[in-house]
Amino acid sequence: MLKAVFFDIDDTLYDTSGFARLARKAALNVMIDAGLPLASNKAYTLLRQIIKEKGSNYDKHFNVLTREVFGQEKPLLIALGMITYHNVKFALLRPFPKTPSTLINLKKKGYHLGVISNGLTIKQWEKLIRLGLHHFFDEVVTSDEAGVEKPDERIFQLALSRMGCRAGKSVMVGNKFSEDILGAVNVGMSAILVNSELTESEKEYIKKEGIEIEVISNIKDLGAIL
Amino acid sequence: MLKAVFFDIDDTLYDTSGFARLARKAALNVMIDAGLPLASNKAYTLLRQIIKEKGSNYDKHFNVLTREVFGQEKPLLIALGMITYHNVKFALLRPFPKTPSTLINLKKKGYHLGVISNGLTIKQWEKLIRLGLHHFFDEVVTSDEAGVEKPDERIFQLALSRMGCRAGKSVMVGNKFSEDILGAVNVGMSAILVNSELTESEKEYIKKEGIEIEVISNIKDLGAIL
Repeated sequence: MLKAVFFDIDDTLYDTSGFARLARKAALNVMIDAGLPLASNKAYTLLRQIIKEKGSNYDKHFNVLTREVFGQEKPLLIALGMITYHNVKFALLRPFPKTPSTLINLKKKGYHLGVISNGLTIKQWEKLIRLGLHHFFDEVVTSDEAGVEKPDERIFQLALSRMGCRAGKSVMVGNKFSEDILGAVNVGMSAILVNSELTESEKEYIKKEGIEIEVISNIKDLGAIL
Repeated sequence: MLKAVFFDIDDTLYDTSGFARLARKAALNVMIDAGLPLASNKAYTLLRQIIKEKGSNYDKHFNVLTREVFGQEKPLLIALGMITYHNVKFALLRPFPKTPSTLINLKKKGYHLGVISNGLTIKQWEKLIRLGLHHFFDEVVTSDEAGVEKPDERIFQLALSRMGCRAGKSVMVGNKFSEDILGAVNVGMSAILVNSELTESEKEYIKKEGIEIEVISNIKDLGAIL
């Protein structure tokens, strides 16, 4: 019987938040050099606030920033910010140090590998390609394709059906308890939380519901479990 | 009195078409390596046809290409194509060899420099920044801001008013007769056609209308005229 391990991408396979933070700070510094009249930490606080309001997939954070600071959009500053953000992000982008060897190991052990991710299909493939990880995955299933986001059961069902394997023979690995872990156990998959810790209320919840999950601090520890 | 020279960007300041061609061919070759079942030249012909139908600012040419070839979108191939296209374009992007020295020369002679371009404001600034030319220009005016495209007189009027100069003291430099040249002379600016030749019907037209324009084959020849 086919055994499969499904992964979340962001903050599971690579340090998404860390790279985004570095890229945003670099972008703001270039904008400040070109005339944005804010101190670096103040600009970062403002940008974070805008990202929180608009969501991280909104692509005009710098437009909003210049509007808030100048009362109008500043195309040169916006363009400088966007170019710097993308250049820094793409230049630095790489998996967590132990991600590639862990994936190779799982392949050697005969696991089929997949991705279950909330996001746009082509964007998620872009990330995998830029990370150099796309050759590892047999199936990449996104909320874009499923029409629903994790933790909705249907995205997990779609992934299982595309991979051709049963829930009982499958594991979900992710960093978000409410999306990755709960969604997976609800369809009968095993689940492993990585790069994240259970809160007290989550601990109570899984105890009450009799859910069994594994918690690991580094993706390399998958080797010892699987 | 303020003297100004306005430039078009694409195929005037840099070889837009040439870089796009190289980047598209590189993208298709990567897609073919990854399973697109077409010969290189056949794939390029199909892509050109799609670009012609959808317009060059449409951002889903590779989506259409995979739909036409496979009957459905292939996200991995699309993502590989897009990443390669952008990587190649940005890696190679630079001005025509004589563009920077020509702009420096015009600055030394006391000209104010501007851009009048059909396109999105932030995209056009991005091009100038990536080309390393954005410091030269006092004003960048786009169809996005003007609400009309070249050759509409209003975009030229907006540029003159933003620069604070009269049409009679201004020159437009561009590679498209019907957009750059006709638009400029209609508002009373001088006009210089670069990287392009007049067709017979254009020659007849300017003779009949008594329009005087200069035609140069290389941007460096601006030095001898201005």
